[in-house]
Amino acid sequence: MAVGLKPIAALEPVAGIRLATLDAGIRRKAGADLVIMELAPGSVAAGRFTRNAFCAAPVTVAREHLLRAAPRFLLINAGNANAGTGQQGLRDARRCCTALAEKAGCRVEEVLPFSTGVIGEPLPVAKIIDVLDAGLEGLQADGWVEAARGIMTTDTLPKGLSRRITSGAQSATLTGIVKGAGMIRPDMATMLAFLATDAYVAPGLLERSLQEAIDASFNRITIDGDTSTNDACVLVATGQGTLRVTEPGEAFERFSIDLQETCRSLAQAVVRDGEGASKFVTILIEEAGSEDEALVVAYTVAQSPLVKTALFASDPNWGRILAAVGRAGLVDLMLDRVRIWLGRVPIVRDGGRDPNYTEAAGQKVMLEPEITIRIALGRGSASTQLWTTDLSYDYVRINAEYRT
Amino acid sequence: MAVGLKPIAALEPVAGIRLATLDAGIRRKAGADLVIMELAPGSVAAGRFTRNAFCAAPVTVAREHLLRAAPRFLLINAGNANAGTGQQGLRDARRCCTALAEKAGCRVEEVLPFSTGVIGEPLPVAKIIDVLDAGLEGLQADGWVEAARGIMTTDTLPKGLSRRITSGAQSATLTGIVKGAGMIRPDMATMLAFLATDAYVAPGLLERSLQEAIDASFNRITIDGDTSTNDACVLVATGQGTLRVTEPGEAFERFSIDLQETCRSLAQAVVRDGEGASKFVTILIEEAGSEDEALVVAYTVAQSPLVKTALFASDPNWGRILAAVGRAGLVDLMLDRVRIWLGRVPIVRDGGRDPNYTEAAGQKVMLEPEITIRIALGRGSASTQLWTTDLSYDYVRINAEYRT
Repeated sequence: MAVGLKPIAALEPVAGIRLATLDAGIRRKAGADLVIMELAPGSVAAGRFTRNAFCAAPVTVAREHLLRAAPRFLLINAGNANAGTGQQGLRDARRCCTALAEKAGCRVEEVLPFSTGVIGEPLPVAKIIDVLDAGLEGLQADGWVEAARGIMTTDTLPKGLSRRITSGAQSATLTGIVKGAGMIRPDMATMLAFLATDAYVAPGLLERSLQEAIDASFNRITIDGDTSTNDACVLVATGQGTLRVTEPGEAFERFSIDLQETCRSLAQAVVRDGEGASKFVTILIEEAGSEDEALVVAYTVAQSPLVKTALFASDPNWGRILAAVGRAGLVDLMLDRVRIWLGRVPIVRDGGRDPNYTEAAGQKVMLEPEITIRIALGRGSASTQLWTTDLSYDYVRINAEYRT
Repeated sequence: MAVGLKPIAALEPVAGIRLATLDAGIRRKAGADLVIMELAPGSVAAGRFTRNAFCAAPVTVAREHLLRAAPRFLLINAGNANAGTGQQGLRDARRCCTALAEKAGCRVEEVLPFSTGVIGEPLPVAKIIDVLDAGLEGLQADGWVEAARGIMTTDTLPKGLSRRITSGAQSATLTGIVKGAGMIRPDMATMLAFLATDAYVAPGLLERSLQEAIDASFNRITIDGDTSTNDACVLVATGQGTLRVTEPGEAFERFSIDLQETCRSLAQAVVRDGEGASKFVTILIEEAGSEDEALVVAYTVAQSPLVKTALFASDPNWGRILAAVGRAGLVDLMLDRVRIWLGRVPIVRDGGRDPNYTEAAGQKVMLEPEITIRIALGRGSASTQLWTTDLSYDYVRINAEYRT
């Protein structure tokens, strides 16, 4: 069902990063479900995690470890979220980190755990520990595509991207993978995205560029409005390439722009592979009084079940878009000033249907797999954009059958 | 698909109210789509309307008229919402009122218009005016059940209720009808509810009792989170019975309680007949720091697509409930204090699954057509409740096919 998303042909290795992907038997279906990512000594990492108050045990542990040490290993499992598992979940996440640290000869806080899958089931710790030796032996630089597959849950395709960053004579590789197809309205990062570059990036600048990139990418997508308990995004800079980002300036700008575009493509890939998605929808809000206001309207439209089912039906039912704007809670919204476009077709102005609008013109846009809804609020100069999907039978099927 | 909802056997006439229900040919399918309700002179009316900024033309006109005069007629059509229709929509609503006023010999501001149906299509004014004569001739006291049918859109059953109010030797009849099955998260009143009593109720007390009743009923339901453009609730007191409510006191208390219970039953009927509903779900929030906080959590759980699809699947996927509580945005939520029950089965405590919980016990509750989710937040003593449905294939089908 993925919209405009092709299987990954290849992903570029990043000097200083090796990966292993294994089948630990965590998920019910056969297939890879465990990824070990090794970071060379000297790597710098920045991470962002879910703001869901019920964050998963691995999120709590990864946050703690990241404060205390530069990570040497990421240990990622699919099939079990280790969320809603209380104190036992924290102990389980730490046991996995400890086992890997002992086998690899590093400190426990140098291992960051990540989990995704069913909420509320105990993590099968023994199954994970059982395959760690094989994983450490199988680490290889060229393991990104397999890893992208190993972190999937309801995703239909592995999602990843490589990019070459150049600044003057210096250059670096940036490779990222991401998973996520449901419970997607990231409020920090999407459920499990991992990026690595061989550039050297000073820690403060790495943090800054990651936060800015996330705000313009993973924090601008929604599939069902349900912020996950396990969202995490990690960016690693191994410093083994020629590109060195040591201060704000041209190299930092270059790095930040490329990172942002990479994150945006990965975030859009999550939407394109959204549960049951048959449409890829861009919501553009313009002329808002503030960015917050623009975001409120954008999310209200993007998450309206009625707008989403109209998108699924390719029905230019613009009245539902207008009703969603109207209920977004903006103070003193002057509806006469609001204008709405479907693609390039003006559909609403002066509080009603644009006089030149025809159903045929609206229908033509709605039949496309990729649709832009543009809304000008007539209140100011702030703007934002976000990406979402439609609501289909398959979304209901996937989520009704998820645990069966 | 309606959950625990039976066809109305009969509704009690209210002295001073006569109704006519007609087929004006407004909706595509054959069947009644126009209701005229006549109020005897001396009746007092109170109304509450949507807070959607894009309110429909009839809402604007009804609000204006209600400020200027005591209504003599309500003119209600289904099949067309007259929303998103700009200045033309306002003219159309006024033309219908004017035509009815001329034929009935009253002033235009004594007619309140109401519309429900597709948004964004011009109101077929001529079709409405054509049947007004027949309507005025056909007015009868015993027309409530037909009227409940005449205001339906995607409703599967007409919804209404009669109740006898007694206070000492005085008594009154209270009869109400309601429609609505989608675009339901009323923020004032649900889409079209009409109630009438033959009690005399002083205007200030009528307003007060209606507001309190709505806050505990129509403003506590959600099907899809989409606040309609056309919500309206009107309560009429004809004063032709023996019950007289002239001041706060026993009669007023009695009237208010009965009104509230009636509104709650009507609001619950809307949920039971929610689009595609296979479950009737009560969300109880306890131990909140404030009622606002309780409501935020209640709506977040009630509107989570993941919770709703789990309900559809009868899957006790309590992790999704917990994740929804976690993302509701409460400041400093202590997850160790949160407890959650499915029916009477404790499912969550100490930040994880209750140690005594069994999947079989959870499954048993989820297989019931009526389910209560109780959440204690451990933050204070405020509480609230609201009612909602699951998210099924039929919800998607109904809303994908709505205009086809």
